[in-house]
Amino acid sequence: MADRPSFAYPPDEWEIIESDFRRDMLPRNESIFTVGNGYIGLRGNLEERRGSYHDGTYLNGFYDSNPIVYTEIATGYARNSQTMLNVTDGKEFRLWVNNEPFDLWTGTILDYRRVLDLRRGVLTREVVWRSPAGKSIAVRSMRAVSFTRRHLALISYSVESLNGEASLVLKSGLDGNMRNQESGKDPRVGSALKGQILKPRGWIVEGSFVALKHETRNTHFILLCAADHHLHTSCPFTMETELEPNHISVVYRIKLKEKEEIRLFKYLAYHTSRDHDPDELIALARQEVSAAREKGFESLLSDQKHFLMCFWEKSDIRIEGDPAVQQSLRFNLFHLLQSTGRDGRTGIAAKGLTGEGYEGHYFWDTEIYVLPFFIYTDPEIGRKLIEFRYGILDKARERASEMSQKGALFPWRTIDGEECSAYYPAGTAQYHINADIVYAMRKYTEVSGDLDFLRRDGAEVLFETARFWVDFGDYIPKKAGRFCLNGVTGPDEYTAIVNNNTYTNLMARDHLEYAVKTAKMLKQKYPDDFAEVSERISLTEEEILAWEKAASGMYIPFDSHSGIYPQDDSFFDKAVWSFEKTPEKCYPLLLHYHPLVIYRHQVLKQPDLVLALFLQGNRFTAADKKRNFDYFPERLA
Amino acid sequence: MADRPSFAYPPDEWEIIESDFRRDMLPRNESIFTVGNGYIGLRGNLEERRGSYHDGTYLNGFYDSNPIVYTEIATGYARNSQTMLNVTDGKEFRLWVNNEPFDLWTGTILDYRRVLDLRRGVLTREVVWRSPAGKSIAVRSMRAVSFTRRHLALISYSVESLNGEASLVLKSGLDGNMRNQESGKDPRVGSALKGQILKPRGWIVEGSFVALKHETRNTHFILLCAADHHLHTSCPFTMETELEPNHISVVYRIKLKEKEEIRLFKYLAYHTSRDHDPDELIALARQEVSAAREKGFESLLSDQKHFLMCFWEKSDIRIEGDPAVQQSLRFNLFHLLQSTGRDGRTGIAAKGLTGEGYEGHYFWDTEIYVLPFFIYTDPEIGRKLIEFRYGILDKARERASEMSQKGALFPWRTIDGEECSAYYPAGTAQYHINADIVYAMRKYTEVSGDLDFLRRDGAEVLFETARFWVDFGDYIPKKAGRFCLNGVTGPDEYTAIVNNNTYTNLMARDHLEYAVKTAKMLKQKYPDDFAEVSERISLTEEEILAWEKAASGMYIPFDSHSGIYPQDDSFFDKAVWSFEKTPEKCYPLLLHYHPLVIYRHQVLKQPDLVLALFLQGNRFTAADKKRNFDYFPERLA
Repeated sequence: MADRPSFAYPPDEWEIIESDFRRDMLPRNESIFTVGNGYIGLRGNLEERRGSYHDGTYLNGFYDSNPIVYTEIATGYARNSQTMLNVTDGKEFRLWVNNEPFDLWTGTILDYRRVLDLRRGVLTREVVWRSPAGKSIAVRSMRAVSFTRRHLALISYSVESLNGEASLVLKSGLDGNMRNQESGKDPRVGSALKGQILKPRGWIVEGSFVALKHETRNTHFILLCAADHHLHTSCPFTMETELEPNHISVVYRIKLKEKEEIRLFKYLAYHTSRDHDPDELIALARQEVSAAREKGFESLLSDQKHFLMCFWEKSDIRIEGDPAVQQSLRFNLFHLLQSTGRDGRTGIAAKGLTGEGYEGHYFWDTEIYVLPFFIYTDPEIGRKLIEFRYGILDKARERASEMSQKGALFPWRTIDGEECSAYYPAGTAQYHINADIVYAMRKYTEVSGDLDFLRRDGAEVLFETARFWVDFGDYIPKKAGRFCLNGVTGPDEYTAIVNNNTYTNLMARDHLEYAVKTAKMLKQKYPDDFAEVSERISLTEEEILAWEKAASGMYIPFDSHSGIYPQDDSFFDKAVWSFEKTPEKCYPLLLHYHPLVIYRHQVLKQPDLVLALFLQGNRFTAADKKRNFDYFPERLA
Repeated sequence: MADRPSFAYPPDEWEIIESDFRRDMLPRNESIFTVGNGYIGLRGNLEERRGSYHDGTYLNGFYDSNPIVYTEIATGYARNSQTMLNVTDGKEFRLWVNNEPFDLWTGTILDYRRVLDLRRGVLTREVVWRSPAGKSIAVRSMRAVSFTRRHLALISYSVESLNGEASLVLKSGLDGNMRNQESGKDPRVGSALKGQILKPRGWIVEGSFVALKHETRNTHFILLCAADHHLHTSCPFTMETELEPNHISVVYRIKLKEKEEIRLFKYLAYHTSRDHDPDELIALARQEVSAAREKGFESLLSDQKHFLMCFWEKSDIRIEGDPAVQQSLRFNLFHLLQSTGRDGRTGIAAKGLTGEGYEGHYFWDTEIYVLPFFIYTDPEIGRKLIEFRYGILDKARERASEMSQKGALFPWRTIDGEECSAYYPAGTAQYHINADIVYAMRKYTEVSGDLDFLRRDGAEVLFETARFWVDFGDYIPKKAGRFCLNGVTGPDEYTAIVNNNTYTNLMARDHLEYAVKTAKMLKQKYPDDFAEVSERISLTEEEILAWEKAASGMYIPFDSHSGIYPQDDSFFDKAVWSFEKTPEKCYPLLLHYHPLVIYRHQVLKQPDLVLALFLQGNRFTAADKKRNFDYFPERLA
């Protein structure tokens, strides 16, 4: 870790504050100060753009795909990549004061403060700046993505002259020349997409209303980014538009009086053909921004605040006496809300809507780490996330079939449901995704009491995935005829393709037991529903018996001598990684050691057995948990 | 298997005969009728080219490389592919008879016979053909690649008019527009190279002497393909040359009398900058073909026959009373000779010089399957193959270091020594390559009695690779402190990344024992050599003790109950593959099942334990061998 103050941001219970401008912190702050609503994400770039680490704007579920290249191909490999796209940038504002450009790399910053307000859902920035020629101004911007209006973002940009008059040129841009970040050698950073993915398909300029239309290269999705503007000022001004290739600016020229402040309001909308008829996008965008403009900026911010008041009422976790911890916790809850798709057709991208790491794919993290939070605080959102999985069940059935298995196998990483893991040992081999999804579904059902989903769509997911396990596993004579799940990768990706990953077996057993229990319950209480779903997937009574048998016969690796659950069958056969011989600069291990070296050792990225002890907590004694919890940290990288 | 006659070729002890022309057999016959000399390979294409499955000409070790694309990259992955190139085609002849083009797709084939003569090392073809307009001709061609002149190939092309006079146009071509075959979905077929790799860099036309010069795209090797011609005829003729882009033809127009035969001799030479100064290539080619032309076709064929007479004297294996078996055996020995690099800088490509499968890479097959043959019949060739490995020792040291290991790790697949396996579970993980090379080196030394190589370069290879094993393996408490080699793939690629592959452990033990024995022997008998090599690689006495300890402590999986050596630690933990449930159309398995499905089962591509029982035959009783031999075939795909 590089040197850094003990608090990156001053402890404050409701605000994340950047109180002095540090260029070296720009990349991190771009993520921290992202605002989003689960659909739109605006990365925390400075409006003036200069010095941006990566200008980013994302729409949950909006992606392009590309055939995956394999130098040595084999059967059943994932065919296409999918990458959440960096879309048209509508956050851009450029300012000239008496012909001097305003940015934080020139002149003198006299005062600086950026605040993400978790109660209001608004990002504000205030800069007092003296130009190289000595002109002093205050620039205040405000940015929010509406939680109540999915397609809408709001930005205002104010300029005040602090010493004498000034002539301003203020340009508000829509920039279609955006690219995704290239990942280079670190798979965690960005994507394999290169170059311009969004092809220009037209623009609209009608006074202060402007729009850019694009089409993705391979998926042929249509994107419409539109903005309307309103300049609040008593000073004289003119307005015109500038068209550059794939870029529109609305340009205001203003004679600013001393001590007066002008404020430009920008209502920004994103619509795509993933949700709407492509021919209707323009009309929808027009409607969205004109309704917003009519309602007004302050009124929209007040809706935002009200939405968040409700959110915090349901979701807040209060910590007394430690504002830093309180801040971290609320920041995290706020980002969960910002990241989560709430339309039943999207999930939670790997980096939320803050950046492009892991190509914006949805992983198991949704079900195991995020969904439980919503289940307890806002089960409706939880249900939407589960509905997303139901929506891709057909693709999961196809994937199981490609893997020569019955039932359904959910993708390890995906946007639209197709498996996108180009490295199957840490991808498709993570079959536990099936059990993770069912785990979340069960929790949702039990906590919310909502049986509706389970009776119809939920049962189909549950039974098809149970089917997969029984087809996949084998009763192995050498394991006393127990039911084994061989050749799998558990959540700990520093160990791959092993027999009987304990996490997977525990979760699959739970999954199968729940499938049996649910089948019996539905048969008894909702026989029509049960008959309907059984008919739909040709379910037989023998299959349910087979689930029961596999669950009760499930092999769970356990070393009775030490009382430790090994991570998998061969875990104790491996040498323990030598951390003493590992130089500081060789972390994270995956960027410095070939996977074969990592896989050969007892060394973990995450102790999945410990996670299983938590998720299946009712099946273990406290002593068991303690003993096993203590065993693994020493093997943790 | 498709229907085919019980003998693909009529049994003959010394000849491979194609006695009627079958279009459906063209692809196979192009491989079967390849002629080569371990450096040049001319695929068995028809001279007229029409209907070719793939026109191919190869030079052992002449390749281009390309960065390997990984959608998800990790540390230490092989960086570049290498592909043996399909080079300038000098086999081409085009014939027009009274303006009608001659090929086997038009007119009528009245007689046809193609023969590969294993005693003469010559491929001949005779066709009697009636043109659509009724003109009858006999076309006879003859093709050889000189075993005594590495850079030289010989072709003659004769035409006889059988009914009346004829005006002939005969074009002999050098075609630089060659491409490699694209592999599509079958990794066994071809390469990932697309498009034109050889860039034209000039041509020479001087009467009947013509040449084309090319440069490879990324490796920047220079290739010169040259040919001189001599037309033997008493008929009047003219000669001219035609230049098309990247293609030269020498064109003869001949007034052919009835019952007369003209014969065009072509002396074809290939030289590259891999062996020579690029500026000398033209002079060398000129010299080669003019010397050949001077010596004459028949005299060169007589050298060829003499070479083969010596070869068969040393190498023949005689089978009495079964000409078909005799034929197969000799055909195979002949192809071993044709495929094998004899210059100390090249090895044996996966498909020899007949085609592009597996990119023309050198694998372990050289040491385990081919080298022993030469060791017993022509140890000089054996030594050249071992020298090739010594030549790439530096790259093997680099590779070990990239894999965070000491010593040297030879590449699983390569042309110039750099690891090219883009799929490491069936590539780099096959560490047994180190032991395989040492096995062949030991056999060479013991059989030939030549200690020269071992005393100097051989010891360096032996010790550096022994070093690798000791650094790689671990003494595992749970295995009673035995020395284990974890996370490896054995020769059976239907099982990947396992602990203690028995083949690997047996071979590595033998390797380490031989290293210890050799170190002791050198120290005693050749102390200067030993001091020299020890100094060169900073070898310590402790290391040799460590080899001894690892060898004697080597863990060998064995099930005392059944007396079976399992293929690896977890082999018996896997379910046996169900061949009853595998439809005929699903073979080979790797083209129909995801690797995860195959790896999860007891199913083998090749029983490597059985191979180990053979290679380490002195360490097993006959009963052991029998019992284990009987166990594995049932698990064989």
